[in-house]
Amino acid sequence: MAGFVAVHTGAGNCIDESKYQRVIKEACMRATDILRNGGSAMDACEAAIVRLENCGYTNAGYGSNLCMDGSVQCDAAIMDGSTLNFGACTNVSRVKNPIQLARRICDAQSSPQLLERIPPMILAGSGAERYADEVGCSMVEPGVLISSKAKFQFNHYKNKYDLVVSSRLGSKAASEEPVPAVPEPGNEVELGAALDTVGAVCVDGAGNTAAGCSSGGILLKVPGRVGQAATYGAGCWATDTDELAIATCTTGNGEYLMKTLLAREICDGAFSSDCAVTSLHKTFKLKFLDSPLLPRQQDLYAGALTLLYYPGQSSGEVMWSHTTQSFCVGYMATNQRVPKFVHSPLPTYSVPGRSCVVNGHNFHLRI
Amino acid sequence: MAGFVAVHTGAGNCIDESKYQRVIKEACMRATDILRNGGSAMDACEAAIVRLENCGYTNAGYGSNLCMDGSVQCDAAIMDGSTLNFGACTNVSRVKNPIQLARRICDAQSSPQLLERIPPMILAGSGAERYADEVGCSMVEPGVLISSKAKFQFNHYKNKYDLVVSSRLGSKAASEEPVPAVPEPGNEVELGAALDTVGAVCVDGAGNTAAGCSSGGILLKVPGRVGQAATYGAGCWATDTDELAIATCTTGNGEYLMKTLLAREICDGAFSSDCAVTSLHKTFKLKFLDSPLLPRQQDLYAGALTLLYYPGQSSGEVMWSHTTQSFCVGYMATNQRVPKFVHSPLPTYSVPGRSCVVNGHNFHLRI
Repeated sequence: MAGFVAVHTGAGNCIDESKYQRVIKEACMRATDILRNGGSAMDACEAAIVRLENCGYTNAGYGSNLCMDGSVQCDAAIMDGSTLNFGACTNVSRVKNPIQLARRICDAQSSPQLLERIPPMILAGSGAERYADEVGCSMVEPGVLISSKAKFQFNHYKNKYDLVVSSRLGSKAASEEPVPAVPEPGNEVELGAALDTVGAVCVDGAGNTAAGCSSGGILLKVPGRVGQAATYGAGCWATDTDELAIATCTTGNGEYLMKTLLAREICDGAFSSDCAVTSLHKTFKLKFLDSPLLPRQQDLYAGALTLLYYPGQSSGEVMWSHTTQSFCVGYMATNQRVPKFVHSPLPTYSVPGRSCVVNGHNFHLRI
Repeated sequence: MAGFVAVHTGAGNCIDESKYQRVIKEACMRATDILRNGGSAMDACEAAIVRLENCGYTNAGYGSNLCMDGSVQCDAAIMDGSTLNFGACTNVSRVKNPIQLARRICDAQSSPQLLERIPPMILAGSGAERYADEVGCSMVEPGVLISSKAKFQFNHYKNKYDLVVSSRLGSKAASEEPVPAVPEPGNEVELGAALDTVGAVCVDGAGNTAAGCSSGGILLKVPGRVGQAATYGAGCWATDTDELAIATCTTGNGEYLMKTLLAREICDGAFSSDCAVTSLHKTFKLKFLDSPLLPRQQDLYAGALTLLYYPGQSSGEVMWSHTTQSFCVGYMATNQRVPKFVHSPLPTYSVPGRSCVVNGHNFHLRI
């Protein structure tokens, strides 16, 4: 069977791209193997993300960023373009592969429950973990998802944070002035580089699409925070019609992706345009960078990996768009032997967080 | 100061409307008191919902529906039309007034955190409870939110559920056939009547709006389930512009409100129409009843309470629309002495879950 997959390891300021290259390629190979053997886009999407969650380099599953209290709390979501079902989990610490739980929640929506109860779409925390255990997801002790790299980064930034807090408390005690909400230059420590959540988009031989995402959330996040990777319309979206099937997954400043429901806007935009590049530029500009829902005078970081498939032509496009310094993506069709890895930079004349680049590639499925 | 408030106690199949009448009126009085004394729409909205959460009759705060495991888990959200900030909490059992926590989360978004961390928009579970405690919300033991009425209802339906499950298991063991996913006629027990979540919409003397909602979720829900009352775009929405300020809150089948992001669609629709009645009819028909995101051949239950305010004319409209058998709402302007209570029925020729009724009232603010 034919099919196509594209994956990303987050938009951000990727200095060492080589660490992502191997795992991105492996995720593509795994997904195309499944598609070749007749697996669905949902199967391939889940498998690609499982690979990215397990690698320890990305901010998803094992190796996720830690919360302010040193714990790990993961979010994941998946959407099925053919059924339009969506499943997500948030605040899970004991599920080895959060995307696997999201998939189970998504699939269960096609089976009505007893007493006409409507199956849940999003599950959180201990309830989500109990459900995961019941439906047979791999469970782990919370500490198991914490990598030594994540612990090191946590200690580094937590120390800086504590220093800033204590220096403010000191100056506050001395001057009795209120603690300033915005960090002063010099004290500033950007956590923005750590946006490396993961995502995947797939189309299978039947022309069905799937989109998924998984994230540990921002480093030092408030425990309990629900991020874009668990938010309907924000982290991923997929919709199949006879003319166009589209799937997208996003990464970036979580709350900004949530406020703008960026994944859904990207797909909605594509249906009212006949050029994917124009449509993505327009959505990023009007619905994100210039959105009245977002703060002005702030750098706004987002990236999206979008797959468009035209069933009539058995052809499609994979598009990457981002406002961040860089975006690492990979893609592969079932009739290719090796995946393609792309390290997309923002053009030198563009300002990160203020402008957007869109690029992509065509593909053809031999159905 | 002038202002207007409208509240609801859920769309459903309200048999005894009198039990809601008193608390709806009290919520309106409390909100208009605040508005008269110069309080903001956000203050009034929060206070109205606190009243509804505390009364014990509604499915919000004290008296919420219980989960499948007999625990209580509340959701709430609030949106500020002037800043477009949104705050929500989900899966909280120890916060006396979930709407109070949502308000704190919403307000905190205007103050950037140290190290350029973006404040969270939605908090879940134990993390949300710890945050609530830190910011000074009233905390209670989980059992305190469980009313005797909720416990009685839980026992009643849980027994029916267990009977259905055991009768299926019995027939399965006998015939070795798979357990049917859809209940057979006769075994059917509808939980649909218990949709009585609460919400409020307000406009203050400055012309700013606020919308909020609070819900214990559906009876016998899967523990951990995130409902529409904590979902961005689904349970409430508010947007103020120079021409039109609009706030809406929804109730009904949670997952259907989430899938269609109904609150946001209602507001979006109003901006591209010059008639509120037409726009609400259109949104309910095209974006809900006929939505490709929802299952066909299913009854689709939703209600929305919408406030439109035209700053140029200092006048507005309050609109109630629903596909349910009934919808109990109340409203009041600051220059009125008593609130108005409305028990809106679906017209006799309409089919619940398949058609929609829209009705409303004008108001004028003396600014």
